Amino acid sequence: MKKFLCGTIAGVCAFCAVNAAAENEIKLPTPNLKNNVSLKTALEKRKTTRTFSNKSLSELDLSNLLWAAYGQNRPNGKRTVPVARGIYAVEMYVALADGVYKHDLGDNSLKKVTARDMRAESDGRKMGAKAPVVLVMVADKDAFNGKAPQYIAMEAGAIMQNIYLYCAGYNLNTVVCGSFNPAEWAKALKLPANKYVILTQVVGCPR
Amino acid sequence: MKKFLCGTIAGVCAFCAVNAAAENEIKLPTPNLKNNVSLKTALEKRKTTRTFSNKSLSELDLSNLLWAAYGQNRPNGKRTVPVARGIYAVEMYVALADGVYKHDLGDNSLKKVTARDMRAESDGRKMGAKAPVVLVMVADKDAFNGKAPQYIAMEAGAIMQNIYLYCAGYNLNTVVCGSFNPAEWAKALKLPANKYVILTQVVGCPR
Repeated sequence: MKKFLCGTIAGVCAFCAVNAAAENEIKLPTPNLKNNVSLKTALEKRKTTRTFSNKSLSELDLSNLLWAAYGQNRPNGKRTVPVARGIYAVEMYVALADGVYKHDLGDNSLKKVTARDMRAESDGRKMGAKAPVVLVMVADKDAFNGKAPQYIAMEAGAIMQNIYLYCAGYNLNTVVCGSFNPAEWAKALKLPANKYVILTQVVGCPR
Repeated sequence: MKKFLCGTIAGVCAFCAVNAAAENEIKLPTPNLKNNVSLKTALEKRKTTRTFSNKSLSELDLSNLLWAAYGQNRPNGKRTVPVARGIYAVEMYVALADGVYKHDLGDNSLKKVTARDMRAESDGRKMGAKAPVVLVMVADKDAFNGKAPQYIAMEAGAIMQNIYLYCAGYNLNTVVCGSFNPAEWAKALKLPANKYVILTQVVGCPR
């Protein structure tokens, strides 16, 4: 995310390695939601909006969004959404202009998995192309031994709802998408055969 | 819900018809959530709890819960959860001690579909038996021409999450259940072949 300039050839080379590591990982700040939005207001304002300004989200916005969506809300590691049999079957990815990152809950960082801008792959209408962020839910087909796909979909639905409520509460626009090309995402994210994108959700500031 | 006494045989007969109608329908008050709970707090406190006091929920509690879960939040009739292609594939039922009621969004009433106490059918562990309320989500197999069961499950997941957040915010306990007997529910609720119970969710006051 951060842009650097350096002056000498040696400097460029030495710096490139450091910079490459920096570019490939974004350490997010600790989530810190303001306490000034009521649950009632978030439920009242919950809606889908398909237009976005080109304003970026801050790293704190992203951190807050990811925490609200699927973050840990207790010392035992349990999350903001319930899951069947204690099995967390989803992983969060974040598609930005400079590539797609996997969210690492352990250190609240984003680790780049591709430098490709995948935002336009959010859906058939390419709604993500004009937004700063597409949140991507990757699910594990093998969770529940492949026998309860509905539990995985319910988990994704709960995450989706948290993202909607966060956006409603904190003045962001969002639209969830189901009509993307899963093969294109699997290729870009280098997913193993058991993983697949189950939902994408475009997020941005209002126009 | 309300109990009545009457004195003469004729009075009993005349009254029974009125009373039967009254017993078979509960007109809920207009939802009126307090604005004193933040979205942040609800997300922080979101959790599953499997113990309940035997205290009842008020009709306002029920009305608020149903609105938060799946109510209309805009004049155009759209809801607190997003749905695919504008198709609402779920209907809410409420299992109380005196029977199971279908929630009619039109006039915000509960209409009795069986006098059977189904709360213990919430799940294999009968967790609902000790709680005042089991919310029941009934889904339509034919929604999306039967071709997108994942969208129905996501919708149910979003409703479930709203119920969890409402309970977290307003000091109720809740546990969602997937391991019930669908045939038993279909029989009790007299569901047509295309309808099925997709989730039950037990709700009650803390012990």
